[in-house]
Amino acid sequence: MSRWQPDASGRLVKAALELYAERGYEQTTVAEIAARAGLTERTFFRHHADKREVLFGGSREMAEAFAAAVAEAPGSAAPIDAVAVGLDAIAEGFTGRLEFVRRRQAVIAASAELRERELVKLASLADALTVALRGRGVAEPAASLTAEAGIAAFKVGFARWVADPDDGELAHWTRDSLRALRAATGEG
Amino acid sequence: MSRWQPDASGRLVKAALELYAERGYEQTTVAEIAARAGLTERTFFRHHADKREVLFGGSREMAEAFAAAVAEAPGSAAPIDAVAVGLDAIAEGFTGRLEFVRRRQAVIAASAELRERELVKLASLADALTVALRGRGVAEPAASLTAEAGIAAFKVGFARWVADPDDGELAHWTRDSLRALRAATGEG
Repeated sequence: MSRWQPDASGRLVKAALELYAERGYEQTTVAEIAARAGLTERTFFRHHADKREVLFGGSREMAEAFAAAVAEAPGSAAPIDAVAVGLDAIAEGFTGRLEFVRRRQAVIAASAELRERELVKLASLADALTVALRGRGVAEPAASLTAEAGIAAFKVGFARWVADPDDGELAHWTRDSLRALRAATGEG
Repeated sequence: MSRWQPDASGRLVKAALELYAERGYEQTTVAEIAARAGLTERTFFRHHADKREVLFGGSREMAEAFAAAVAEAPGSAAPIDAVAVGLDAIAEGFTGRLEFVRRRQAVIAASAELRERELVKLASLADALTVALRGRGVAEPAASLTAEAGIAAFKVGFARWVADPDDGELAHWTRDSLRALRAATGEG
């Protein structure tokens, strides 16, 4: 039997999502996920730390892409505009993934443990963004506050995208949310 | 033996903080906390759900006080100004508690589980604030985004207060952080 397993990671994520939706996250085991994907448990653990992390693969890469885009924004850009460049970069990575994301968010919404995990990932994203802004020479507390504002726009924009009946693009919703945040916190 | 135990809850929190700092959070048991406080385990569980929640007592009351202050802000106040009124109200509740908060934050910083718990409590605070803003007639997404901005100012302001060598007031730091957030996200 060949050890070549094309897209094993993706097949495991798909199998996990199916099982979590069918039976619930708590009730599903790694053995069942591997079996549904036609793979071994050993292969599962080569790709994912546990049955929780299978839903959060790519978080680190997303934080790195966000930080890289912010670092590479034009030097003349204001901190909040550099954050906007970063938001566009990560939104692009979600192109064509709305259906998958909707199923994933439904599973996360149903589990307190998974909702907590998502908060941790968002906090890590805010930390990476803060570091990227400091790297652009932004002083504290502006770096932390601009990063938190950017993550707020991402969080709210993401939720609006998932709920959008018109199946739009994430970038549309993160941009609109950042615009609305700036209007809401404006000096009036 | 009298069953009257003045400030049992506060004694348990104090004992827990001492033990977490001395031995580490993971290594401390509820039995040890109760013994240090001169109380029984049964009394511990009358006041706190577990050894984690002993550090987060008052979170719900804080969220309620925040929401109440936002609801009672002048009807003419812009959403972000109503949030500022709420921030002042919760900052007032921390008057004279800096030394306690510093010890508590040191314990939380040393434990991934406790850091996660703090994120959950902050997210609950943002939810309560969103509901309070909607109650003032603020539409979405402005309600969620203004709430997230307010919590960002609280989070960053709180950290700056804890780190402040001059032992200042929390309200000073939350106000300054909200001001800096508004400047950083301003339309420029």
